[in-house]
Amino acid sequence: MNTPMKVTLLAGGVGGAKMAEGLAALPDVDLSIIGNVADDDAFHGLWVSPDIDTLTYSLADVIDRTQGWGVADEGHRALQTLSKLGAETWMTLGDRDFGLHIHRTMRRAKGDRPSDIARDVANAFGVKPQILLPTDDVVQTRVRTDDGWLSFQEYFVRERCAPEVRELAVHGLSDARPTPEALEAIAGADLIVVAPSNPLVSIAPILDVPGIRAAVSDAAALKVAVSPFIGGKVVKGPADKMMKALGERPDALGVARRYASIIDALMIDRVDAPLGAEIRAEGLDILSSATLMKSRDDKARLASEIVDYARAQQLETRIAS
Amino acid sequence: MNTPMKVTLLAGGVGGAKMAEGLAALPDVDLSIIGNVADDDAFHGLWVSPDIDTLTYSLADVIDRTQGWGVADEGHRALQTLSKLGAETWMTLGDRDFGLHIHRTMRRAKGDRPSDIARDVANAFGVKPQILLPTDDVVQTRVRTDDGWLSFQEYFVRERCAPEVRELAVHGLSDARPTPEALEAIAGADLIVVAPSNPLVSIAPILDVPGIRAAVSDAAALKVAVSPFIGGKVVKGPADKMMKALGERPDALGVARRYASIIDALMIDRVDAPLGAEIRAEGLDILSSATLMKSRDDKARLASEIVDYARAQQLETRIAS
Repeated sequence: MNTPMKVTLLAGGVGGAKMAEGLAALPDVDLSIIGNVADDDAFHGLWVSPDIDTLTYSLADVIDRTQGWGVADEGHRALQTLSKLGAETWMTLGDRDFGLHIHRTMRRAKGDRPSDIARDVANAFGVKPQILLPTDDVVQTRVRTDDGWLSFQEYFVRERCAPEVRELAVHGLSDARPTPEALEAIAGADLIVVAPSNPLVSIAPILDVPGIRAAVSDAAALKVAVSPFIGGKVVKGPADKMMKALGERPDALGVARRYASIIDALMIDRVDAPLGAEIRAEGLDILSSATLMKSRDDKARLASEIVDYARAQQLETRIAS
Repeated sequence: MNTPMKVTLLAGGVGGAKMAEGLAALPDVDLSIIGNVADDDAFHGLWVSPDIDTLTYSLADVIDRTQGWGVADEGHRALQTLSKLGAETWMTLGDRDFGLHIHRTMRRAKGDRPSDIARDVANAFGVKPQILLPTDDVVQTRVRTDDGWLSFQEYFVRERCAPEVRELAVHGLSDARPTPEALEAIAGADLIVVAPSNPLVSIAPILDVPGIRAAVSDAAALKVAVSPFIGGKVVKGPADKMMKALGERPDALGVARRYASIIDALMIDRVDAPLGAEIRAEGLDILSSATLMKSRDDKARLASEIVDYARAQQLETRIAS
């Protein structure tokens, strides 16, 4: 039996949740996940936290596996009433999901810490890993298009990522304070994994919370990122279009360059082997595998390859010292 | 063809909604309904207004006809999530219904007048009669039992009216201001009808809003109340137990005595004919009919008997003058 390894995952939405599920499936892994809250927004007066909820629903195994988000066996009666009452309903919120948003909003109104709410919700759903927030403050991604600034969900859901992205900004970031839980999970980790999430709108808003990037940088942990690109394409979402539009390479090398200053190694897909030399030139070690996570087994296998690599590195360090 | 008659109904929950449906079904009736808001309360941080919603749902013909409240084709997924998250869920709120509470809460938080919200909701549901609030202020019935004070819904829904009622109080009433719409509907009415609702917890909290009772008293309209009692029993709810517990007669005579100072006539059920002499002794005219409203026809017939009586009285007055 191995010593439990403390793993801290930085995770965005669907890709982050899949990586979280993979790591959660491994024995001897004590998993903490720092999720993205910059996609949060108010709908119908309720506070919705899509990435955190996708983590919770995935790890509780109540996620709608066809969509990859939302709850299985969902209804849309509340939204039908809201539509009848004249509300815009492009943000598809299901009835089960509404229950969570109602709970969260009530607790926020009472002054409860968003981190405490997320923890209690995860516990109520029977989630074992810790789901942590990078900050308890409101930080919100804004997307500038040729038609002006959009909220993230307006860009992502209402406009289906169609408009060209000219600029990204995260409101509230400069004044945001990191949560003690996130800082502790980073400082105490044996392994920090950056999930195959959108580097610009999922991972950056976590790392850019003042104090988080430095904490990752200072952490004693081994740090491995998983590239969300497979042959220059992403599985889901607009990361490829966005990286390109903002002058970054929309591939594993672009990801390597983004994370080079804070990670030790990058997990890339086998098809991206030709980029290996350039990624190494960024000072990074390379792990290579089949990175597409479809089944439960795919997720656990990819996770175990990262954890095994980390164990091997630990062993090397121990032998060397 | 008759001249349209301006009818203003004071109405509580289910009995009030049935009377409203009956009046709304009549041609040549211009109906305004002043509903009860003293049953309102917050659940899960959302503002719920059961009597007003029962009026809206009934008149929109989306009411659950089996229950007499709530919406037909309802789901309970949101409540299931809230239950999972540890909330008390004895107040059965359906998913369609939650949509309305979410909307109302959002608009209240924006500072919109409760009266405007109720009007817009009724319009969105295609309700023709005007649904008015007696006050835009928060007034809430409290029920003292041997175990202390309960909110109205705790008494009514959670405890199913089982505890003996020792005292009733309506918080916020002394500072409440009547809405201009309610005062106007009272002053401008040809006929004011008091629905067969609970006199203590449905009608009293309307009449007791400062200014409303005097407005009814001063109004030129003919005023007719419908007794909710049939042979000393009520169709639904705790009015009989409550009247008795608080030292009032739980029958048509008790109702006559409650309303004698403001009404001209009382509609009683035929089985209550033996109380006729005593009711007349209160200075009231008597209308007598089968007052149990089960079908659509029952409601319209009872309503038309009241309206016909009012037309006959108008004619008499005109001939006399």
